[in-house]
Amino acid sequence: MSHNSFGHLFRVTTFGESHGPAIGCVVDGCPPRIELVEEDIQIFLERRRPGQSRFTTQRQEADKVKILSGVFDDPQTGRQVTTGTPIALLIENTDQRSKDYDAIKTVYRPGHADYAYDAKYGVRDYRGGGRSSARETATRVAAGAVARKIIPGVLIRGALVQMGPHKIDRANWDWDECAKNPFFCPDAKAAAFFESYLDGVRKAGSSIGAVIEIVAENAPAGWGAPIYGKLDAELASALMSINAVKGVEIGEGFASAELTGEENADEMRFGNDDRPLFLSNHAGGVLGGISTGQPIVARFAVKPTSSILQPRLTIDRSGAEAEIVTKGRHDPCVGIRAVPVGEAMVACVLADQFLRHRGQVGESSAWPSRP
Amino acid sequence: MSHNSFGHLFRVTTFGESHGPAIGCVVDGCPPRIELVEEDIQIFLERRRPGQSRFTTQRQEADKVKILSGVFDDPQTGRQVTTGTPIALLIENTDQRSKDYDAIKTVYRPGHADYAYDAKYGVRDYRGGGRSSARETATRVAAGAVARKIIPGVLIRGALVQMGPHKIDRANWDWDECAKNPFFCPDAKAAAFFESYLDGVRKAGSSIGAVIEIVAENAPAGWGAPIYGKLDAELASALMSINAVKGVEIGEGFASAELTGEENADEMRFGNDDRPLFLSNHAGGVLGGISTGQPIVARFAVKPTSSILQPRLTIDRSGAEAEIVTKGRHDPCVGIRAVPVGEAMVACVLADQFLRHRGQVGESSAWPSRP
Amino acid sequence: MSHNSFGHLFRVTTFGESHGPAIGCVVDGCPPRIELVEEDIQIFLERRRPGQSRFTTQRQEADKVKILSGVFDDPQTGRQVTTGTPIALLIENTDQRSKDYDAIKTVYRPGHADYAYDAKYGVRDYRGGGRSSARETATRVAAGAVARKIIPGVLIRGALVQMGPHKIDRANWDWDECAKNPFFCPDAKAAAFFESYLDGVRKAGSSIGAVIEIVAENAPAGWGAPIYGKLDAELASALMSINAVKGVEIGEGFASAELTGEENADEMRFGNDDRPLFLSNHAGGVLGGISTGQPIVARFAVKPTSSILQPRLTIDRSGAEAEIVTKGRHDPCVGIRAVPVGEAMVACVLADQFLRHRGQVGESSAWPSRP
Amino acid sequence: MSHNSFGHLFRVTTFGESHGPAIGCVVDGCPPRIELVEEDIQIFLERRRPGQSRFTTQRQEADKVKILSGVFDDPQTGRQVTTGTPIALLIENTDQRSKDYDAIKTVYRPGHADYAYDAKYGVRDYRGGGRSSARETATRVAAGAVARKIIPGVLIRGALVQMGPHKIDRANWDWDECAKNPFFCPDAKAAAFFESYLDGVRKAGSSIGAVIEIVAENAPAGWGAPIYGKLDAELASALMSINAVKGVEIGEGFASAELTGEENADEMRFGNDDRPLFLSNHAGGVLGGISTGQPIVARFAVKPTSSILQPRLTIDRSGAEAEIVTKGRHDPCVGIRAVPVGEAMVACVLADQFLRHRGQVGESSAWPSRP
Repeated sequence: MSHNSFGHLFRVTTFGESHGPAIGCVVDGCPPRIELVEEDIQIFLERRRPGQSRFTTQRQEADKVKILSGVFDDPQTGRQVTTGTPIALLIENTDQRSKDYDAIKTVYRPGHADYAYDAKYGVRDYRGGGRSSARETATRVAAGAVARKIIPGVLIRGALVQMGPHKIDRANWDWDECAKNPFFCPDAKAAAFFESYLDGVRKAGSSIGAVIEIVAENAPAGWGAPIYGKLDAELASALMSINAVKGVEIGEGFASAELTGEENADEMRFGNDDRPLFLSNHAGGVLGGISTGQPIVARFAVKPTSSILQPRLTIDRSGAEAEIVTKGRHDPCVGIRAVPVGEAMVACVLADQFLRHRGQVGESSAWPSRP
Repeated sequence: MSHNSFGHLFRVTTFGESHGPAIGCVVDGCPPRIELVEEDIQIFLERRRPGQSRFTTQRQEADKVKILSGVFDDPQTGRQVTTGTPIALLIENTDQRSKDYDAIKTVYRPGHADYAYDAKYGVRDYRGGGRSSARETATRVAAGAVARKIIPGVLIRGALVQMGPHKIDRANWDWDECAKNPFFCPDAKAAAFFESYLDGVRKAGSSIGAVIEIVAENAPAGWGAPIYGKLDAELASALMSINAVKGVEIGEGFASAELTGEENADEMRFGNDDRPLFLSNHAGGVLGGISTGQPIVARFAVKPTSSILQPRLTIDRSGAEAEIVTKGRHDPCVGIRAVPVGEAMVACVLADQFLRHRGQVGESSAWPSRP
Repeated sequence: MSHNSFGHLFRVTTFGESHGPAIGCVVDGCPPRIELVEEDIQIFLERRRPGQSRFTTQRQEADKVKILSGVFDDPQTGRQVTTGTPIALLIENTDQRSKDYDAIKTVYRPGHADYAYDAKYGVRDYRGGGRSSARETATRVAAGAVARKIIPGVLIRGALVQMGPHKIDRANWDWDECAKNPFFCPDAKAAAFFESYLDGVRKAGSSIGAVIEIVAENAPAGWGAPIYGKLDAELASALMSINAVKGVEIGEGFASAELTGEENADEMRFGNDDRPLFLSNHAGGVLGGISTGQPIVARFAVKPTSSILQPRLTIDRSGAEAEIVTKGRHDPCVGIRAVPVGEAMVACVLADQFLRHRGQVGESSAWPSRP
Repeated sequence: MSHNSFGHLFRVTTFGESHGPAIGCVVDGCPPRIELVEEDIQIFLERRRPGQSRFTTQRQEADKVKILSGVFDDPQTGRQVTTGTPIALLIENTDQRSKDYDAIKTVYRPGHADYAYDAKYGVRDYRGGGRSSARETATRVAAGAVARKIIPGVLIRGALVQMGPHKIDRANWDWDECAKNPFFCPDAKAAAFFESYLDGVRKAGSSIGAVIEIVAENAPAGWGAPIYGKLDAELASALMSINAVKGVEIGEGFASAELTGEENADEMRFGNDDRPLFLSNHAGGVLGGISTGQPIVARFAVKPTSSILQPRLTIDRSGAEAEIVTKGRHDPCVGIRAVPVGEAMVACVLADQFLRHRGQVGESSAWPSRP
């Protein structure tokens, strides 16, 4: 019942604080004989790594991952593979500037977890937010890289689709654009606008929220489990567990409240390949908590960073009222770096559901093919 | 890792299909010596029970709950109390009309779980939706009634705040109104409108979505657990697991994406009672996955019922294309009866988090009082 | 983290007290499309059922099981099969004689759980031992019957191998004998002796302990999981959880402490079928927590029934010292009926480990066949 | 459902192989504000550390533990305390001699996990036994040191009570002796004998089994949970999960099979302090899966090390029959170093059960004091 673990057959346990010596995770339940080297993980960490543009925190962390266990030479290929034992991943912290945080040692940032941790535990590592820092999400990205290797046929991609009140134009959607701008934005025009917009936010010492969309393609029908192991419920939990996330939706999401039954129905035919074909995807690829074979579509809202230069009213630990201005190095839009994190969480959930499905039902597709 | 269970220290396992002999649940981990009789549970089941207005399914189920285990006479008071052992609750199904479903025996309702269950398991109880029926939620309401007894100081109430595109006027919010209309709607004026609006939907053989809001007041600061046991992540999972739910948000939710850091910050002062006082509640009572002492506010979107009289394109199990019209008895707005279900899920999550907090941290409030 | 559940992918939750209206269990995670009718379960309940000889409690319980959920007609065969949803099993209590227990309402039977329950919970259902009664084990046997259907190739049998200080002669071992005497004893000669021996114990108002051995044949190599999911650790937990069990051993067990490394080594060759062949089975079919393909052998010790007619010193709830004589109907050797219970627990553990193995590793045999 | 984790509210996840760069564990759920520095853990690691006498492996490992996370300065005392977040502990491997294992790269040691790992996973780290090495138990000892801090009032001690066929004389039991000989033996006379006895075993290139006893004193009545969370079932699982353990017993254990009900009953009176007093402890401090307040007594049998210099018949991965002699550095009696490991497992189980009890029942003692 660890609250620093998630997943069931594919299970990840993370540890570490923002300014401690290291962060890391233990990935348990990974199937054996999957090729895995550090570089497979590093490429995903690079996408989340801070300090790569002026739109993220200027903290310089190499985020070099070390595999401490769980891999060995395959007896047939000689290549390094998983062994079925726990894979421990370690990332050292190298660019802590803890002095930046002396000012908030006893004062609570409004909108931040500072007060809640103190109320719960009576102690907290205030340096860089300690355990509540988004730095923890690097370990999620590392675990997600392993998860992807378990379900290599599933393509999982994320995009920033809204910044502040500004939504992208979905007609412009081009996945390739996401790698060409510092926002993971699939709409080149919107990305250009976000650049100047976010500069304004940043220079004002402010911050802004965002909406992220994750799409997983090619997952077969049948993953997920009814009632309390629902694929969408597990996605909701996984995405809501990301720092600063305040809402999650699947497929049509909140907009489905406005639809009639006939509008919302994803009608079915058979495709040219004689397989079931849906004529729309309001469901976002999940019905009854089980995947349908359509793209799985999840969106989540990220609130603005609470560490800002604008002064705010607050209290301190001694019982005094105070005003706070948070210096240090922060993301003006923490939603940006949430894109690779969201992808990683979806990858972990899907890998877990794949293994669980294989455990309960076996690998054969249950549904009869068209005669 | 049961997918028919939820919760950790307070753990609920449900069972039963819509047209089987009975549905029920086992509530495990309830503390001992809490007074509990069937009537304590029945009053909540009455609120969810079908057939009470023309706006819900006309299936007539008494939904009488029986306590099969886990209670006995208290040695001091002689009153019936929980004993710390599992509380099994049973509700017999009495008004099944399975013949209604012969038409959909092999045909999939678009937007329903029919196809997904078949794709996963290769077999499904098609009568009334079987296990995927909202009938299962009666057992959640029963479990929620037990959960409320564990945290009697916490007031948990739900309301329908949107039907189709029509949102209530929050200025009219009056909790007492919820009991006075068949929609659990806190805005009397909106409720009057919904009556005629939903009549139209129903007569057209259509259905419509809704948004529900649950508010839990008086939970102390400190419940919840960082990272993967976050209070908001567990709420998201619990609410998303309810039939037909497609989105969940906490506090400001998706609207927080549009806010700046200074707008979103819930500033703090001390109140007249010398306790921390928040000047707003954008956070919805949760920061860093931990309760702050403010009201906990969660909303969820319910899609329209997929069983409608409007014909839709579909396929059948034999591999043929078909058209489907679903007769039987259905809710034109399944969101209505989701209100007591949402309350129950929030009650279960909070009871569990209370026990977990008490286990890890103990009962004393950690945060120092103001000098 | 329910303490009334066990197993992971195959997960059983039990409920009910000895003198409540019913006992039962929910079996979650059973694979779909396995033929299952009540009679499949009933035949195992018959073996554990009380009142069948003078050597077990004279309580007359029909122990008729009802399947409340989780089964339906297979679309291809039309036969009743599991659907992948939770299987709820109910057994009504019919022959309670609660008055027998008025005498022990406030007095603790030495060696029984009475005092411990009161110390923990401050309340207990004293009628027939309440939740701590061996009556709960009927639900384990029911769950075990389902488990056996998941791994039909595995033959799981149990035997009483010691009663009091008297061990059977293993040279006489004949599995067929177990069904021919009221002790599940594979040694006909020992069984004849036990008859008169246990008559003496019974007439003296005393009780006696026993040792049970469970053997599971034909489980393939590879089930189980290293470190904390070890097959032998799960067997130990499952068997120790049976009422009155005080010790568990695998293979050579405690006797292995007396062996040298060369004596204890199970040497290996290849068999006529070109598969690995062990020349002995000191390991009891488990190495490193993983099955080896040899018979899995577990033994457990059952203490004597604590409800006896011999007077014993004790205390009562009010704080007085007392003497106790337990009337009511009790097993003079509770170890006898533990045989089918032990078999059931082993079946549940193996079914769970099979599903977990299939989940993590898949169905293919990893070990290369001999060239 | 991680198979490299154990415990529930106090939950430990371990990782690492014998010859990898490091081993370690993540301790989750530790209460906040408990003083903890590395030295608190190191003192227990010193007791298990190899290479301290000629009776354990000659591998020289400093076993220096590093705390990577989960501790910080207490705001009131300024001392380093736990923060409620996960405590990651790392121990680097420094004295690997992997070449020793080239000979067993493809050959299976009889009685060892080599074959089982290959059968399950199709790959294994053969260097020093990889994940199946007893080296993993160092991380258990580290976790156990944290566990002890959660229940400081409970005194947990272990002793070697049998080596090969030679049992100690319990009349000579003196806990202080355990620290004075290299066997953790409480009987000075037996320890002297073991010295020459084990020299003989070692020189013969053989190995021998042992029995270990762990006693936990001063745990209050009420810890543990009925049915499947039983204190004794969790102890059985925890101890059976230790490398080479083949049997576990509680209190009278297997000997209870030979007792009558009246012999086995632990009679009760009130003590001078007006608290319940047991006149014997056949139960080993556990009734109905719940602690009684008496000393908790568990024993476990450790088989002889399977890595021996005596040649044994075996097979290899390629399908050939072979003979094996295991060189490398091994414990002639692996049971010796199992003593601190057994203590650690008992500490972890008790800390977990304490937190679970506090969660479900609260801290107040439920049983009424004597009037």
